Amino acid sequence: MQELSTKPYLMRAIYDWCVDSGYTPYLTVTVDALTRVPMEYVKDGQIVLNIGPIAVERFKIGGEFIEFSARFNGSGREILIPVGSVSAIYARENGQGLSFEVTPAEVAGSEPPVDSRDEPPPEPPRPSRKPSLRRVK
Amino acid sequence: MQELSTKPYLMRAIYDWCVDSGYTPYLTVTVDALTRVPMEYVKDGQIVLNIGPIAVERFKIGGEFIEFSARFNGSGREILIPVGSVSAIYARENGQGLSFEVTPAEVAGSEPPVDSRDEPPPEPPRPSRKPSLRRVK
Repeated sequence: MQELSTKPYLMRAIYDWCVDSGYTPYLTVTVDALTRVPMEYVKDGQIVLNIGPIAVERFKIGGEFIEFSARFNGSGREILIPVGSVSAIYARENGQGLSFEVTPAEVAGSEPPVDSRDEPPPEPPRPSRKPSLRRVK
Repeated sequence: MQELSTKPYLMRAIYDWCVDSGYTPYLTVTVDALTRVPMEYVKDGQIVLNIGPIAVERFKIGGEFIEFSARFNGSGREILIPVGSVSAIYARENGQGLSFEVTPAEVAGSEPPVDSRDEPPPEPPRPSRKPSLRRVK
């Protein structure tokens, strides 16, 4: 079984806590090659998204991607965010939540690091996910 | 509305991640006046508990308390743990999980619960590695 990341579990936890508390969950994303967001709202490589139930539809935090649809300036957009590119999830009202180290998507064509050439080819490369957690009140 | 703590949400997240990953979730608890655990397993004011589905029944992480029943040396015991007294939840197999600052219950005049001491004190389970908030993949 492939090793599961704790990150989607922790993001769901903060999302649920926000909604149960009546807070608005916000997501900060470092945009990479796999991110599908309205680029006109990206600033300094990052986008901040309101992911509250009022703002989005078909919201899902999966093991690899966060997916939802939302309206931007009146236009419906389908959003796709790799879990690894999320740098924070928090309540807009008080900033409580979690931040993570971002692990940019490995784009096809990039070479995985090879330590020893004597060993057989490794398993399909997996992104190393080592988010650190901060700001848990 | 009373302010909700993120802690039970984060504990449920790590618990679910452990179970989905096939790991055994362990809980480290700093025993205080409201904690109901077999005192013969408490060492240096702490107890480490296996909270995996095989080890416990009627397991529930509520907003204020963790509750379950479990067998200790053959005897069924009802366990009650204030959320604030949990110092860590992690996978036994690799130590991944979260640690928390403990907020002991302040109960004026109360004494720690005392359970039967007529059972021999077996070795409590020990974590293989100290869990850390920073060590989350």
